[in-house]
Amino acid sequence: MEKKEQQFVREITNMEDDFAQWYTDIITKADLVDYSPVKGFMVIKPYGYALWESIQNFADRRFKETGHKNCYFPLLIPESLLMKEAEHVEGFAPEVAWVTHAGREKLQERLVIRPTSETIICEMYKKWLNSYRDLPYLYNQWCSVVRWEKTTRPFLRTSEFLWQEGHTLHETYEEAEVETLQMLDIYAEVAEDLMAIPVVKGKKSVRERFAGAEDTYTIEALMHDGKALQCGTSHFLAQHFTKAFNIEFQNRNGGKSHPYHTSWGISTRLIGGLIMVHSDNRGLVLPPKMAPTQVRIIPIQQHKEGVLDKVYEIKELLEKEFRVDIDAAKEKSPGFKFNEAEMLGIPVRLELGPRDIENGKVVLVRRDTLEKEEVSFDKLYERIAELMVQIQKDMFDRAKASRIERTSTAYNMEEFKKALDTKPGFIRAMHCEDEDCEAEIKAETAATIRCFPFEDTEVISDKCVCCGKPAKKLAYFAKAY
Amino acid sequence: MEKKEQQFVREITNMEDDFAQWYTDIITKADLVDYSPVKGFMVIKPYGYALWESIQNFADRRFKETGHKNCYFPLLIPESLLMKEAEHVEGFAPEVAWVTHAGREKLQERLVIRPTSETIICEMYKKWLNSYRDLPYLYNQWCSVVRWEKTTRPFLRTSEFLWQEGHTLHETYEEAEVETLQMLDIYAEVAEDLMAIPVVKGKKSVRERFAGAEDTYTIEALMHDGKALQCGTSHFLAQHFTKAFNIEFQNRNGGKSHPYHTSWGISTRLIGGLIMVHSDNRGLVLPPKMAPTQVRIIPIQQHKEGVLDKVYEIKELLEKEFRVDIDAAKEKSPGFKFNEAEMLGIPVRLELGPRDIENGKVVLVRRDTLEKEEVSFDKLYERIAELMVQIQKDMFDRAKASRIERTSTAYNMEEFKKALDTKPGFIRAMHCEDEDCEAEIKAETAATIRCFPFEDTEVISDKCVCCGKPAKKLAYFAKAY
Repeated sequence: MEKKEQQFVREITNMEDDFAQWYTDIITKADLVDYSPVKGFMVIKPYGYALWESIQNFADRRFKETGHKNCYFPLLIPESLLMKEAEHVEGFAPEVAWVTHAGREKLQERLVIRPTSETIICEMYKKWLNSYRDLPYLYNQWCSVVRWEKTTRPFLRTSEFLWQEGHTLHETYEEAEVETLQMLDIYAEVAEDLMAIPVVKGKKSVRERFAGAEDTYTIEALMHDGKALQCGTSHFLAQHFTKAFNIEFQNRNGGKSHPYHTSWGISTRLIGGLIMVHSDNRGLVLPPKMAPTQVRIIPIQQHKEGVLDKVYEIKELLEKEFRVDIDAAKEKSPGFKFNEAEMLGIPVRLELGPRDIENGKVVLVRRDTLEKEEVSFDKLYERIAELMVQIQKDMFDRAKASRIERTSTAYNMEEFKKALDTKPGFIRAMHCEDEDCEAEIKAETAATIRCFPFEDTEVISDKCVCCGKPAKKLAYFAKAY
Repeated sequence: MEKKEQQFVREITNMEDDFAQWYTDIITKADLVDYSPVKGFMVIKPYGYALWESIQNFADRRFKETGHKNCYFPLLIPESLLMKEAEHVEGFAPEVAWVTHAGREKLQERLVIRPTSETIICEMYKKWLNSYRDLPYLYNQWCSVVRWEKTTRPFLRTSEFLWQEGHTLHETYEEAEVETLQMLDIYAEVAEDLMAIPVVKGKKSVRERFAGAEDTYTIEALMHDGKALQCGTSHFLAQHFTKAFNIEFQNRNGGKSHPYHTSWGISTRLIGGLIMVHSDNRGLVLPPKMAPTQVRIIPIQQHKEGVLDKVYEIKELLEKEFRVDIDAAKEKSPGFKFNEAEMLGIPVRLELGPRDIENGKVVLVRRDTLEKEEVSFDKLYERIAELMVQIQKDMFDRAKASRIERTSTAYNMEEFKKALDTKPGFIRAMHCEDEDCEAEIKAETAATIRCFPFEDTEVISDKCVCCGKPAKKLAYFAKAY
C-alpha cells in the first residue's frame, strides 16, 4: 500500500534534477492540461481552466471598475490590414496561420487568424470615431489568438493561447500614458493580490518592446529556476497605428487629430508562472484565493459510525464561506487521498476519523508548509479563515524573499556571468540602451533586459555593464521564458 | 428641435413595411453590432456584448449547478479527424475554413477552424477515458466557431459566431438521454426566465437533426414576422462518435463498452431572437433581467438648482439593487435623450425636473408599453422593484399570447398554405416522418418541421398533412431563420 500511496510524489521528477521535466510532470499529473493532436496546441482541462476562470473573474471585475467594456472582434483579419503598420507586420507575419480556402473555394484575399487584434480593431475605430466627445474608447476582448511557434511548452509558449486584449483610444498623449500605467498596475494586482506572485514593474528596452509600440511596460516575475517570466504587458502605442489607419476625430478646436492609443494583455501564460513560482516536488501549491477547492475533507475509517455524518456537517459549516469538497471514494486509501490533495495544491486538507470525533478535534494540514495542527470543532471555522489569509500572505512573502535573495548586482560582464552561473535570477546592472549592446549581452549570456524597473532606479555606476559607454539607467537582466 | 428629437425613430424602418430592414436598423442604431471588413464576420459592440455576457452568466451558473465544468479545446482540427464520422463530415465539410500555411511554410496536413468540436473532443476523450468510475464526463467550452455562410445576417447567421458547446459522456443510454433533455430544459430557462422568450420544446425531424446525431432536441421561438427561430439544440449522439473514434471504457462487468454521448449549444443567435420577439418601431425592448441599464434617469432643466443633486441622490438610492445610469449630457435635449433611451430598450426611464422636486414626485415611463406614471419619492424604490418584475412578466406573456394567436392547425396542404399566407406562424399538422415528404412541403411552401413538440401531442388526424399516408405525430411547421 505504501508504494501505491507514494505514486504521485514518485512520479514527479525533482525540480533540482530536471526543472523542465518537473514542470511537465506537474501540469500533466495535476490534470491541468494535455497535448492535442495539433502540434503546439494544448487542451486546457477543467482543473487548469478553473485557474483561468479565477484570473478572468478578478481581472474582468477590475477592468469594469475602471470603466472598460467588453466586446468581440472577428477571428480573421485580411492580409491587407495586417500589412498596414510596418513594424507590426514585420513582427507578426512570420508566425501567423493563413486561411486560404473556405469550403471548396479559394479565397480572393488570404486571411490570418488574429495573432493580436490591433489592426482589425483600428479599422473599426476609424469607422466609429467622430468627435472628442466620443473619447475615450475603453474596450477589451477575451479570446484566443494564434502565433505559430516552433518549440512549445504548455501555458508558457503555445501556438494558440487564451488571453484578453484591451484596446483604448484617448484624446491626449497624457491620458493614454495614464491608461497604459493604470492597466499595468491592475496586472500587478492580478499577479500579487490574487496569485501571490511578486512582480517587478518596469519599462521594456527598445529591443524587447511590442511590434508597433512607442513604449511597452511589463510585469516580470522570477521562477524557481531563476529564469524570469514576462507576466503581462501594457503598450503605449501613441499614434503609430492611429496614423497608419488614419483614425481621426474632431478636436476641441474644430480641427482633426489622431487619437492616442494603448493595448494591453495577459494570458494563460500566467498559469505557467503560478506553477513555477509556488509548486514543489509533491505537486501544485495554490494560493487560497485562486484554488478551485480551498479545503478538502478526507475521512479516516469512513465506514465507522458517525464519521461521514460529521464530515458532511463540517462541509456544510465551511462551505458558507469557503470552497470545500470531500474525498470519500471507497477505492482509495487515506494516504493516497493525502497525496492526491497535495498534487492538486489544495491549500488545506482536513482529516477526520473516529478518534478525532471522540476528542472533538480535526487535523489540518497546510499544503504550502505541510505543517499539521489539531483544531477543536468550535474553533474550526475561525481557524480556516485565518489560514486562508495566512497561506496567501506567506506564499507571497516567500516568493518575494526568494526573488530578493536571487537578485544580484553586477558592474562588469565578469560579475554578470558569475552571478548568472552561481545564483541564477535577476541581475541589476547599468545599461547604455543601445540595441546592439543588448544583443551582444544576449549572445554571450542568453540573458536579456527584462525591464528598467520603476521602483529600483538606483544609479550604481555611470558606465554600461557591457560596453562601458555612458549609461543612465539601471536595468534588470535575466534569462527568460 | 422636434425634428432632431425624432431622428432615432425616423431612422428605423417600420417592421410592417420591411421586416429585414427594420431588424438591420435596430441592431445598428442600438449599437449592438457592426459589419467587419471580412464579409460575413461581425463585430459585437459593447452594448451587444453585454447582452451576451448576461446570457453567459445565467447559463454558466446553471451548467455549474448541474455539475458541468468548463475547459478549452484547440481552435484548429486536423482534416483527418474531421473525416472520421461520416455524416458529420458530410454536414460540415462544405462550410469550413481551411488553414493551409503557417508563417511562410505550407502545412503537412490541412487544418480546419472548428465548426463545432465533437471530433477533437472525442479524440481527447478516447485518450483520457479508462473506467466506468471516470464517468460521466460533463464538460463545456465557451468559444467562437466558424461556418462559412454565403448569405449572412448579424446574430442570426454569420460565418463566425460565439457559443458554448457542452460535450458529455455517460455509462448508459438512459443517463445520456436524461442529460440531453436536462440541457434542453436549461436552454428553455435561459430563453423564458432570462430573456422572456417563450419557446416550444421538441424533437427535430430526421431531416433537420444534427449531422451525426441519433436525435436532436430543440427550443423554437416565434418572431414578430411569424418566422421561427431555433434558439438552442441538444443532441443525443448515442454511440455514433464514440464508435467512430473508438472511445472505450472498462464496464462494471470487466468488459469494454463505448460510452453514450451528448452535445448541446446556444449561441449569439439568441440575441437575434431577443430583438425579433420584443422590439418595436421605436427600437430595442429589453427584459429587465437582461438589460445592461434597467433604469435611466433623465434630468429636466438640469441647470436649475437642486435638479442634479436630486438626480444623484436617486441614483444612489436605486443602484443598491438596480442597474441605473444618468444621462446628464448638456448637448442633448431631454426629448433626444428620451428617444435614445427608447432606442436602447432601457426598461424604465425616470424623468425629474424642478416642478417634480417641488411636488415630491418623479415620472416613470415603461419602455415596453410606453405608459407614464407619477410616483412619489418615498414609494420610488418599491415601485421600481415592482416594475422590474412586472415588465419581465408582461413581456413574456405578450410574446406567448402572440405565439398562440399565430399558431394555426391544418389538415391538408390547402389549409396549410392558406394559414402560412394569412397568419404566418406555427402550423400544427400531422406528419408521416418521411424525409422526402418533408422535403416536398419545404419545396412547395418554404416551411419546415420545426419540431415534434413535447407539450402538444394531440393526434388531430391519422393522416399526413401532405402525402396522406399514416401519421402518428403532430409536428409544428414554420418558415424559419
